[in-house]
Amino acid sequence: MFAPSRRAVLAAAAGLGGAAAVRAAAQPVVIITADPLPSWAAGPAKSAIMAYVRKVIEPGPDYIPPEARIAVFDHDGTLWCEQPVYFQVVFAFDRIAKMVAEKPSLRASPSLAAIADTGLASLGEIDRNGLIDAIFDVQEGLTPDAYQDLVRAWMAGARHPRFNRPYSSLVYRPQLELLLWLNAAGFRTYISSGGEVHFMRAFSQALYGIPPEQVIGSSQTTRFEAADGKGQVIACCALGAFNDGTDKPGNIELHIGRRPVLAVGNSDGDQAMLEYCAGSPWPSLQVLIHHDDAVREYAYDRQSRIGQLDKALDEATSRGWTTVSMKTDWKMVFAQG
Amino acid sequence: MFAPSRRAVLAAAAGLGGAAAVRAAAQPVVIITADPLPSWAAGPAKSAIMAYVRKVIEPGPDYIPPEARIAVFDHDGTLWCEQPVYFQVVFAFDRIAKMVAEKPSLRASPSLAAIADTGLASLGEIDRNGLIDAIFDVQEGLTPDAYQDLVRAWMAGARHPRFNRPYSSLVYRPQLELLLWLNAAGFRTYISSGGEVHFMRAFSQALYGIPPEQVIGSSQTTRFEAADGKGQVIACCALGAFNDGTDKPGNIELHIGRRPVLAVGNSDGDQAMLEYCAGSPWPSLQVLIHHDDAVREYAYDRQSRIGQLDKALDEATSRGWTTVSMKTDWKMVFAQG
Repeated sequence: MFAPSRRAVLAAAAGLGGAAAVRAAAQPVVIITADPLPSWAAGPAKSAIMAYVRKVIEPGPDYIPPEARIAVFDHDGTLWCEQPVYFQVVFAFDRIAKMVAEKPSLRASPSLAAIADTGLASLGEIDRNGLIDAIFDVQEGLTPDAYQDLVRAWMAGARHPRFNRPYSSLVYRPQLELLLWLNAAGFRTYISSGGEVHFMRAFSQALYGIPPEQVIGSSQTTRFEAADGKGQVIACCALGAFNDGTDKPGNIELHIGRRPVLAVGNSDGDQAMLEYCAGSPWPSLQVLIHHDDAVREYAYDRQSRIGQLDKALDEATSRGWTTVSMKTDWKMVFAQG
Repeated sequence: MFAPSRRAVLAAAAGLGGAAAVRAAAQPVVIITADPLPSWAAGPAKSAIMAYVRKVIEPGPDYIPPEARIAVFDHDGTLWCEQPVYFQVVFAFDRIAKMVAEKPSLRASPSLAAIADTGLASLGEIDRNGLIDAIFDVQEGLTPDAYQDLVRAWMAGARHPRFNRPYSSLVYRPQLELLLWLNAAGFRTYISSGGEVHFMRAFSQALYGIPPEQVIGSSQTTRFEAADGKGQVIACCALGAFNDGTDKPGNIELHIGRRPVLAVGNSDGDQAMLEYCAGSPWPSLQVLIHHDDAVREYAYDRQSRIGQLDKALDEATSRGWTTVSMKTDWKMVFAQG
C-alpha cells in the first residue's frame, strides 16, 4: 500500500535505481551522485552529515568497517510527524472506539468509555500510564500478525486532522533520502523509538525500507499458546520495555549488541541515545531534529507536551551535535503533498 | 582467535570459497555443490534437511522469499557441547574464583565462597536461581565490551575437562556446515538460547559466523551512565529475560518480528520454539538433536540434569519432526579434534 510510489520517487530523487540501491547495501560502494540528499538545503547540517558519511566509508583514518556502521533513528518526530499527538495514540483511540461499540461491557472502564465517547478530547483526562494501557489494550489477546493487519487497515483509511491526508504521507522526505543513502553506503539503519514495536513494524519496511528485525520499541509481554503442535505468541499481561530516555541505550545494546555510530533524534527522550552514540570508539555523529517550522509542519521544543526538546537542545549546542532546523535545512518536509 | 582456521576448513568442506559464500548470502542462489553437508551421514535426517532447504529456495510451490528465510538455533547442546555442565557456568565459576581471590570480602556470600573453594564441585549445593545469580555476578558493573573481553580471554585459555582442549573446538562440525549452507542459501541464521546473550556474542561471529544482532539470549537489566556527554551501558540489577522454554517464542518475536521457518534444538527447553516454528504459514522444518553418542560425545536425554530431552522427544516422534542421531547421522562430531 505505501511501497511502490514512495520507493520509485525516492530512488529517483536520490539518483539511485532500486535494484542498484539494494545491491549497494549488500556490497558497500562509494556512491557517485551529484547530491544524495536533494531535499536538504545547503548549510551546516547537510554539510556535517555528508562529510561524516563520506569520511567513514572512504579509505582513510576515519574509515568504519561495514559491520560497525550502525545508525539509529528515533521514530515519532524524527522520521514522521508526531503532532498534535503521537499517531499511535490516534490509532489506539480509534480502535478502542470500535471495540467499545462492539462490546459495550468495556464501558465498565471509565477511561475506555471516555475514549470511546470523546476520542482525542479525552486525552487531558488520561495520564501517561493510562495512555500506555490504552496502547496495549488494543493488542491484548492478539497475535502480532492479527494486530498488524489492524494497524495497516487503519493507516489505509485514517487522515491527519490538520493536513487531511494519510498519516503514511507525513514521513519526512529528507529523512527518507538520508535512510536510502545510508543503506547504500553500507550502514544498517535501525529505528529505536518509544513507540510500540509491533505498531511500527506493521509499516517500517514499506515506509522506510527498514525490516522488522531492525525496529526496537516499547513492548508488551507475551504468552505462548500451542495447539496440535503449532505455537502462537499472544500479546498479554504487562509492560515489557518502555523504550525511551535512559532505557534506549540498554535496549539498543540488547537488540543489536553494537553501539551506533550515528544517532538521530528530536526530543529529550533521545538524549541518552545520542550520548550513547557519542561514546562510540569510532567516529560518530549525533543529529537532533528541531521542529521550528510552524507553517509547513509544527514549531515546538522546550515547553511541548509531545516531543519536548529542552535539555537535549542545550546539550546539542554545548557538545557540537548537529542540529537540523526543519525550517531552513529542509527544502521539503513531507514525502508527499 | 577462532576465525581463520575454522572458516577456511569449513568453506573447503562445504565446497564454497569464503568470499563466494558471503556474496551468496547477500544474493541467494541455488548452491551447486556435490554435498554441502559432508559431515552428515546419508540417512533420513540429512535427506529431510537437504530436501527442505532445496525446495524452499528453488522456484516452485514451496518457495520462500529470502526475507522470510529465518532459521533459529539453540546454542548449548545444539551448536556446541553442553556437558558435563554448560560452559558458561564453567566461565562464571572460574571468574568468581578470581574475583574472590582479588577481593576476599566477597566471601561474605556463602555461595561465592563455595564456588571459589570447590569450583564445579559446589554445583550440587547451588540451586537454579543461585546459578543465574553467579552468571550475572560476573558481569555486574561491567560494560558489555569489558565483559566480553573477559569471556574471550577465558575461552583462549580454558580447556574442557574430558576432551582436554579449548571449548571453542567443541562446536559441532555438521552444524557449522549447515549454518554455512543456510547462509549461502539466503537464510538468516539466529541463535536463540537460554545462555546469557553477551557471553554468546563474545564469540558468535568468530565461531559460527553469526553476528551479535542475530544472537538472542537470557539477559540482565542494565543502567545508563553518562559523563562528558558520552554514555555507557552497564550490566546491573536484575534478571531481564530468561530465554528458555515457552519464553523463547516471545523473545524471538520481540527481536526478529518474523516467525522462523527452520528451528533446531536439543532439549525440552526448545520445544516451544519448535512448535512456534511449526505454526509458520510457510513450509517449515523442526530439527531435534539427540545426544546418543557416549563414545564421541555424551549420551543423555530423558533423565539428564543438563539438556533434558523428554517431552520434546515424544513430540518429535508424534509430529514428524526431524530427529538427528549424533551417533548415526553425524560422521564427525566436533569441528576440530
